[in-house]
Amino acid sequence: MPKGQPTSVPDDGLTTRQRRQRPLLMVHTGPGKGKSTAAFGLALRAWNQGWRVGVFQFVKSAKWRIGEQTVLERLGQLHDETGEGGPVEWHKMGSGWSWSRKQGDETDHAAAAAEGWAEVKRRIAAEAHDLYVLDEFTYPLTWGWIDVDDVVAALTARPGRQHVVVTGRNADPRLIEAADLVTEMGKVKHPMDVGQKGQRGIEW
Amino acid sequence: MPKGQPTSVPDDGLTTRQRRQRPLLMVHTGPGKGKSTAAFGLALRAWNQGWRVGVFQFVKSAKWRIGEQTVLERLGQLHDETGEGGPVEWHKMGSGWSWSRKQGDETDHAAAAAEGWAEVKRRIAAEAHDLYVLDEFTYPLTWGWIDVDDVVAALTARPGRQHVVVTGRNADPRLIEAADLVTEMGKVKHPMDVGQKGQRGIEW
Repeated sequence: MPKGQPTSVPDDGLTTRQRRQRPLLMVHTGPGKGKSTAAFGLALRAWNQGWRVGVFQFVKSAKWRIGEQTVLERLGQLHDETGEGGPVEWHKMGSGWSWSRKQGDETDHAAAAAEGWAEVKRRIAAEAHDLYVLDEFTYPLTWGWIDVDDVVAALTARPGRQHVVVTGRNADPRLIEAADLVTEMGKVKHPMDVGQKGQRGIEW
Repeated sequence: MPKGQPTSVPDDGLTTRQRRQRPLLMVHTGPGKGKSTAAFGLALRAWNQGWRVGVFQFVKSAKWRIGEQTVLERLGQLHDETGEGGPVEWHKMGSGWSWSRKQGDETDHAAAAAEGWAEVKRRIAAEAHDLYVLDEFTYPLTWGWIDVDDVVAALTARPGRQHVVVTGRNADPRLIEAADLVTEMGKVKHPMDVGQKGQRGIEW
């Protein structure tokens, strides 16, 4: 609904243009489908604007997001070759984060998640990306692996013009409070309810 | 949640594999963000699987989805050049549908919408695409420009292995009933509520 009108105009001393350009903290939560998929759709738009996209996957999985990763990394390669769009970095927990030399021993998922968040914080301080996709980031928060207050403080105080989208179920109320845009994906009907498992091309 | 388990297994005579491969009718509805964005994220995955992607935009707009269109058409071009991914077609209402010779006079939006749906029906009968994105398709249904029962009949009886995703608010109950997967995007918080208008890279 890009042509919508604000329902109220705040007395914040900003011009409409300044307010419009304000970077957003977005949260996609809820039990339904589309939380991550919509975040990767945002990454498409960001790439198209020439933004520097950084994706950080906080839950280990062998096959999740393979389609999106292939496509976004291909777009990043296009950028490097032709200058189209923006650069793309994709990092995931699993056998060590992509930027990390540490590989292999991944038994301590809590430590790996904390390491991932520490790197995201460093990048935010350095204004390394224009859009951060923190995929499935609510889970290590829920599990107590990463401190919610630290996350909210770092995201709220982020410098410059950096957009952030966090995905995952059960987003902490403090994160929701801090966010500019929150969408709750509700499950109305899902094929698993009638015995259909996920399939290639749709789920990954 | 690709690794989830079905909560029940139906007595439909299908094997798990057959059931898994069953093509899906998906609906993204509700007042929140992410309905179309998630559909375009699905299109990314589909492209990556080599599927033939057809996007049909049912609401005229000068700037909506420009980012997604540019990226998906670029991916379609990559397919044509290198064989990577699948072919992409993007058609929109506006100054005539892309496949139509008729251009210019677009005063009759209802007729244009009906013409678009007639073409989608022909393509479904011909199994022209593996994924159809019918973007903002709920609106011409709500406005009575296209007959809901005709849509449900054609989508339910579609041959072969064609996936369809319909986006838009207020999906008709008959469409929801016919769908395999329905996600309701709920608005929890939106920047427009505090006077921030949409911005480039995020909204389009």
